Amino acid sequence: MVEAWRGGLLESTHAGHAVIWGPGGMETAWGDPSAVIFPRSSCKMIQALPLLETGAADAVGLTDAHLALACASHQGEARHVTMAGDWLATLGLSEPDLRCGAHEPLDRAERNRLIKADESPCQLHNNCSGKHCGFLTVTRHLGAGPEYVEVDHPLQRAIRAATEDVTGETVAGYGIDGCSAPNFAMSIAGLARAMQAFAAASDDGDTRSRAMHRLTRAMATYPELVAGEGRACTELMRAMGHKVAIKTGAEAVFVAILPEQKRGIALKIVDGGTRGAEAAITALLVRAGVLDPAHRAAQKRLGGKQTNWRGIETGWVQAAPGFPG
Amino acid sequence: MVEAWRGGLLESTHAGHAVIWGPGGMETAWGDPSAVIFPRSSCKMIQALPLLETGAADAVGLTDAHLALACASHQGEARHVTMAGDWLATLGLSEPDLRCGAHEPLDRAERNRLIKADESPCQLHNNCSGKHCGFLTVTRHLGAGPEYVEVDHPLQRAIRAATEDVTGETVAGYGIDGCSAPNFAMSIAGLARAMQAFAAASDDGDTRSRAMHRLTRAMATYPELVAGEGRACTELMRAMGHKVAIKTGAEAVFVAILPEQKRGIALKIVDGGTRGAEAAITALLVRAGVLDPAHRAAQKRLGGKQTNWRGIETGWVQAAPGFPG
Repeated sequence: MVEAWRGGLLESTHAGHAVIWGPGGMETAWGDPSAVIFPRSSCKMIQALPLLETGAADAVGLTDAHLALACASHQGEARHVTMAGDWLATLGLSEPDLRCGAHEPLDRAERNRLIKADESPCQLHNNCSGKHCGFLTVTRHLGAGPEYVEVDHPLQRAIRAATEDVTGETVAGYGIDGCSAPNFAMSIAGLARAMQAFAAASDDGDTRSRAMHRLTRAMATYPELVAGEGRACTELMRAMGHKVAIKTGAEAVFVAILPEQKRGIALKIVDGGTRGAEAAITALLVRAGVLDPAHRAAQKRLGGKQTNWRGIETGWVQAAPGFPG
Repeated sequence: MVEAWRGGLLESTHAGHAVIWGPGGMETAWGDPSAVIFPRSSCKMIQALPLLETGAADAVGLTDAHLALACASHQGEARHVTMAGDWLATLGLSEPDLRCGAHEPLDRAERNRLIKADESPCQLHNNCSGKHCGFLTVTRHLGAGPEYVEVDHPLQRAIRAATEDVTGETVAGYGIDGCSAPNFAMSIAGLARAMQAFAAASDDGDTRSRAMHRLTRAMATYPELVAGEGRACTELMRAMGHKVAIKTGAEAVFVAILPEQKRGIALKIVDGGTRGAEAAITALLVRAGVLDPAHRAAQKRLGGKQTNWRGIETGWVQAAPGFPG
């Protein structure tokens, strides 16, 4: 799907699977649409469905901004960390109630602040802390036990059921994600089908449809909460005028929800390389007519000149011949 | 060649090319041995040949430790930075004479020191600064101009000639590397052939042979200067008892020099992913009988349990069926 060039020679390549699902079903596929993958963080909007459908979100007055953070792989900017901490406080909970683990934030400013203050990163800095705040909101609403990432916990059972509904598949198994939550396996086609369901949802539909509509709107409205400054999700959603919701997942998964077209897109680069996934989703969004290939955010991932530490051009990343056609 | 597993399911895969070259020529190949690649930093010992062959190294009394640093992609630990700075001072030069550019060091301690001191990283922190110190040593010895990374500079012409000698190929072109130096393209087979020449070199041979022997010895003797604590080159060379020299390159290249067997190995993972290259070279070193597969340094790259931020097992990386056989 994707080629990395240097000095006029092809240096590296990325192969993958992708599916575009429309109102009538699967429209286009590359690679193997039945390939079973872990969606990783690309399915956070599916994992957030119980948050709305149980009434937990409204019970504590969550805003669209909170919902965007629940669907985020954020980079631990101060605003992400503060928002997650305040959210927990609203629930009468605090950082030790999280089960996501701690890692250094990707955001340079917050990382440097921690280092200068001799502070360790906490679980609020974990890129999944917003999702876990959502998890805790449901857990508290259900009166369920504190170990909410156990696969048999009522929350995870609800997520599994929602996953099977929206993908139209029985889950093929599960893995433990970086944040310790179960991640349910599914086919690329199933993930694209789920994204199409989000794209076709409306605010006057049933509970499921309203939940999907609201999560999509939240993500597209607050790109800076879904990832952070400089990141692909944030920059590309802004470049598309907040009309499309996209989400990356570890190991080179990317999904897109296109409400105006009622289409969903899912892709997986088989080697797990982020560069490939970002370039491929850029190519598919351009193909769908929702992203200007000349936009700076698009060029950064596909077609633009790559430079080295001295600003010298070294090469570029391009779509492979025939992709996406 | 390599598979990443999670939750009992195959999550990602890495394909590649590899060649083992022995005294009699090419012994084994996977993928396409004629595939043209950029060796990137894996060829630093080739790029260091003029440093010895011109007499520049001995003229300024360089030690094996300096030669190891010249072949390094170091992580900017204080010892690397200090050694590079002292080396330049010996030449009557200083940091602005480098042409590698600056980037944040991978080493946490030095990175944090810089942040706390509100200092920016300098060119001495660049992972290639040792190579560039070597480049400047030759440049000064030859009385050549200061722009030593230009492809027509006498130094780069000497490197091109040495490259063609040791690979047995006319270079297929060149790219600009991250450190701004030209990087000459070659086949995987040519790179393996070159590594075999290093493996077969001796300290009572001709100028070329003595230079190769000394560079190999320097790398194997000082693994901590070739990369740094925690890194694959350093940990694996130590695990092999300093008897084998190995070197990684960007975009998933890895080479090995096995003097006792007079064999050379070169591999390239086509997607450019470091995880794949580290796992594949581990598998090939185990196959060659020079690395214990149960060693902690081997398990970290191949076969050992992978864990997440909370220390929970998530999966493992293994060789693909049939590789390396």
